[in-house]
Amino acid sequence: MSKEIIYTQTVQFGDCDPARIVWFPNFFRWIDAASRHFFVECGVPPWHETERTLGVIGTPLVDTHAKFMKTASYGDVLQLHTSIPEWRPKTFVQRYRVMRGDDAIMECDEVRIFAGRKEDGGIRALPIPPEIRALCE
Amino acid sequence: MSKEIIYTQTVQFGDCDPARIVWFPNFFRWIDAASRHFFVECGVPPWHETERTLGVIGTPLVDTHAKFMKTASYGDVLQLHTSIPEWRPKTFVQRYRVMRGDDAIMECDEVRIFAGRKEDGGIRALPIPPEIRALCE
Amino acid sequence: MSKEIIYTQTVQFGDCDPARIVWFPNFFRWIDAASRHFFVECGVPPWHETERTLGVIGTPLVDTHAKFMKTASYGDVLQLHTSIPEWRPKTFVQRYRVMRGDDAIMECDEVRIFAGRKEDGGIRALPIPPEIRALCE
Amino acid sequence: MSKEIIYTQTVQFGDCDPARIVWFPNFFRWIDAASRHFFVECGVPPWHETERTLGVIGTPLVDTHAKFMKTASYGDVLQLHTSIPEWRPKTFVQRYRVMRGDDAIMECDEVRIFAGRKEDGGIRALPIPPEIRALCE
Repeated sequence: MSKEIIYTQTVQFGDCDPARIVWFPNFFRWIDAASRHFFVECGVPPWHETERTLGVIGTPLVDTHAKFMKTASYGDVLQLHTSIPEWRPKTFVQRYRVMRGDDAIMECDEVRIFAGRKEDGGIRALPIPPEIRALCE
Repeated sequence: MSKEIIYTQTVQFGDCDPARIVWFPNFFRWIDAASRHFFVECGVPPWHETERTLGVIGTPLVDTHAKFMKTASYGDVLQLHTSIPEWRPKTFVQRYRVMRGDDAIMECDEVRIFAGRKEDGGIRALPIPPEIRALCE
Repeated sequence: MSKEIIYTQTVQFGDCDPARIVWFPNFFRWIDAASRHFFVECGVPPWHETERTLGVIGTPLVDTHAKFMKTASYGDVLQLHTSIPEWRPKTFVQRYRVMRGDDAIMECDEVRIFAGRKEDGGIRALPIPPEIRALCE
Repeated sequence: MSKEIIYTQTVQFGDCDPARIVWFPNFFRWIDAASRHFFVECGVPPWHETERTLGVIGTPLVDTHAKFMKTASYGDVLQLHTSIPEWRPKTFVQRYRVMRGDDAIMECDEVRIFAGRKEDGGIRALPIPPEIRALCE
C-alpha cells in the first residue's frame, strides 16, 4: 500500500482562460508540485542530497495520462490526492486525483523514473532505491 | 486522412527548469497552441464566429496521453506535427509529434470535444460538425 | 493607513530556471494572486458581484515598478506583504514586499484602476468606489 | 546608438485571462525571451561560452518598470522592439516597446547586470564587457 498525501492548491484568476475555467496546462504545473510534495512529506531528502548518497538527481516524467471530468475556476480550492500505486523494476506509477471537496475534477497517472547521471552528461533510469521506496509505502 | 499542420516553437531559457531541460507542463502550453493553430490553418473560423453559426465555443480537452522520449533545452527549435487521425460521433483524437529535426522528443494523443453551451451555463459535447470535419480532412 | 495582508507562496522546482533561481515572471504571477487575495481578505465581494452593484469588473494594471534584491529558489517560503499606501482620484498604488523571513527578496509598486465597461465593449477607469476604499483602510 | 531588434510573438488563447486579455505576467515571459533574442541577434555567444571566455553567466534583472497602454488578446501578433539605450559602469538599461502594428501596447525599461560567479557560489555584477557592448551598439 502506498501512502496518500494531499497537496492543496487554490485556483487563481490568472490560472483561468477566456472560457473562465482552468487552462489545462496549469493542472500539470500543480501535479508536478504535488509529486515533489509527496516525496518531501514521506521524508525523502532533497535531490541534491540524494545525488550524493544514492546518485538520484530527480524523478523525470516518462509517460502521463490524464482524464478531465469537471471544470474548475478561480476561487476553487483543489485537493491533489497523491500516491504511488505501483513500483516496477526501474519505473514507478505516481497517481493524482484532483478533487474539489467531493467532486472529482481530474485524474492523472504518471510513469516516472529515478534518474542518475551518465558519464556523457545524459541521464539514465536507476533501479528503484529501496530506501526511497520504503519511505513512500 | 487528416491534414498535418506544423507549429514551430523555439524553447526559451525560462521554459527550462534547474535540470536545464524543458519543464514538462510547458509542452502542454505549446500543444494547446498547436491545437488552435491546426484549426486556423485548416480554415476553421474563430470560435466567436462558430458560436453564432454552429454553436461551437471551443474544443475542450477530455483526455490526454503523452510519452516523453528525449529532453529538449533552450535554443532548440521544435516542430509540433499536428493532425486529427480519428473522428468519433462526439469526440475526436488530436495527435502531436514533437520533433527537433529528426529527433522525436514527445508524442501526445488528446481526446477533445466540440463544446456548445447548455441552458444552465455549463457546456456539452456537440455532434462533430461536418463543415469543420471537412475542412480538417 | 492601509491594511497589510500577507500572502504566502512556496517556490516550486518548476518556478526556477536553469540558474536555479526563480524565473522573474513568476514573481508577477504571485503578485497578481496577492493583489486579489488582499481584496478578498479585506472583505471586498468578488468582481462578478461588484459588477452588478458598482460596475467594477476588476483592477487592471496600468504601471508596475519592481526591484529585485535577493534571489529565491525552490523550497523557499515567501511572504508577500500587500498594502494600498496611496489612493488617487481614479487610480491606486498597490505595494508588495516579498520577504523570506527577514530577507527582502523583491519589492513592487503597482498602479491599478477600478475598471468598468464602456458601451463599446472597452474598459474605463472608474472613480475609486468609497465602499471598497473603506474596506481596505 | 543601440541596435534595435524585433522579437515577434503571437498571443495564444491560454495567454489570456477570463477578461479575454493578456494576463500581464505573460508580457514579462515574452520580454525575457526578447532580451535573450537581442543578444543572440547581435552576435553575442551563448552564456555557457561567455562563462569560459569572460566569466559572464547571464544578465539577471535588477529593476523593471513597465507601463500598460492598450490591451491585447489572442490572435494578436506583437512586435517587441528591443534596444539598450544606456550603458552604465556595471549595469545597462534594456528597453522594450511592445507594438501591435502602430498601436503601442506596453513599454518596459529594465536594469540588468552582466553576472559572474563569486567564490562562495553567489553572483556579482561584472564591469560591462567591452566586447559585448561593441556587438550591441
